[in-house]
Amino acid sequence: MLHLKSESGQLWLDQVEKQTDLILIDHAHCEKKAAGTALNLMFAYIEDEELCREMTEIVNEELEHFQMVRQLLKRRGIKFCRLKPGNYGSQLHALIRSQEPQRAVDRLLIAGLIEARSCERFDQLRKHLPDAELRDFYDSLFESEARHHAVYVRLAKHYAPDAEVMSRLDELATAEAAIIAAGDENARMHS
Amino acid sequence: MLHLKSESGQLWLDQVEKQTDLILIDHAHCEKKAAGTALNLMFAYIEDEELCREMTEIVNEELEHFQMVRQLLKRRGIKFCRLKPGNYGSQLHALIRSQEPQRAVDRLLIAGLIEARSCERFDQLRKHLPDAELRDFYDSLFESEARHHAVYVRLAKHYAPDAEVMSRLDELATAEAAIIAAGDENARMHS
Ligand SMILES: [Fe+2]
Ligand SMILES: [Fe+2]
Ligand SMILES: [Fe+2]
Ligand SMILES: [Fe+2]
Repeated sequence: MLHLKSESGQLWLDQVEKQTDLILIDHAHCEKKAAGTALNLMFAYIEDEELCREMTEIVNEELEHFQMVRQLLKRRGIKFCRLKPGNYGSQLHALIRSQEPQRAVDRLLIAGLIEARSCERFDQLRKHLPDAELRDFYDSLFESEARHHAVYVRLAKHYAPDAEVMSRLDELATAEAAIIAAGDENARMHS
Repeated sequence: MLHLKSESGQLWLDQVEKQTDLILIDHAHCEKKAAGTALNLMFAYIEDEELCREMTEIVNEELEHFQMVRQLLKRRGIKFCRLKPGNYGSQLHALIRSQEPQRAVDRLLIAGLIEARSCERFDQLRKHLPDAELRDFYDSLFESEARHHAVYVRLAKHYAPDAEVMSRLDELATAEAAIIAAGDENARMHS
């Protein structure tokens, strides 16, 4: 359902357990970036009414998630700060084709894959974190990221026939799994 | 309360009456841009918790306004399309000082002045438009733009002492009134 080609392994969970605070800070940044991505897509494809409606909803939800993570950081006395972004996002964005409408398809599918990976990782976190409050927190976020994934894949079909979208999603998911497999020395939500 | 140095005159109302559809399309773009401005300010000053909370709310409201204008266009059978932006926004943005924290003060105050001008114009529209549905529509939007204005002015005071903020607001409001007085040959919400 999430169209991912791999599952996050112990290596990443080890990074999380060693640097939970850092992962939480990065998580806040991820929610902020998710809102920015949705708004940029709305600006780029502003004639597409359904896309605008869905992006409006996603922007609202991601900003709400951002506030939830900020509150969590505050309750735990973790200072929110800027972080060097991991290389996951930039590696994915490099795969976007430059010509429209392929560009639209790729931007939407990549946004969808990032949602899928967040969702898969929230699932790992809700199952494996030793901290009960955090397990509940990630459980509460799991569903909406799965829904966002489905929305992005559906919207991509405005810009190419279904079969073409699904075969491109397969390609991009393979690339995404390779990026995840290579890992990132900096502990991040998507390292 | 809106800190504006001028009132919109008959010249603009004439533009509106002659090209109401165009003004409505531009209005949709204005709401979209207002959401973008708020999100950009949040990204730029992400450590500022109160700013992040307020920007989250403003982004949501502006996107809701955008959807409302889109629905109105649809009901009226007006095709939404891209428009060459008026020169109001770019002339205002040219006034932003480049050094922080002055840059923050200016970005917030200019966002606040754009809200104030929208508010003043919605007030004109709710009073003077011949079309009752549009009068009600602008009446319903008036208040939130006034509130947004106040929020931006308040947030600017995070980045400079009150007196400095108010004297800079006075300067920028004078410049804004001059830009409005010069007008724009293209009929726009801020022409
Ligand atoms: Fe989210
Ligand atoms: Fe999401
Ligand atoms: Fe608005
Ligand atoms: Fe506003």
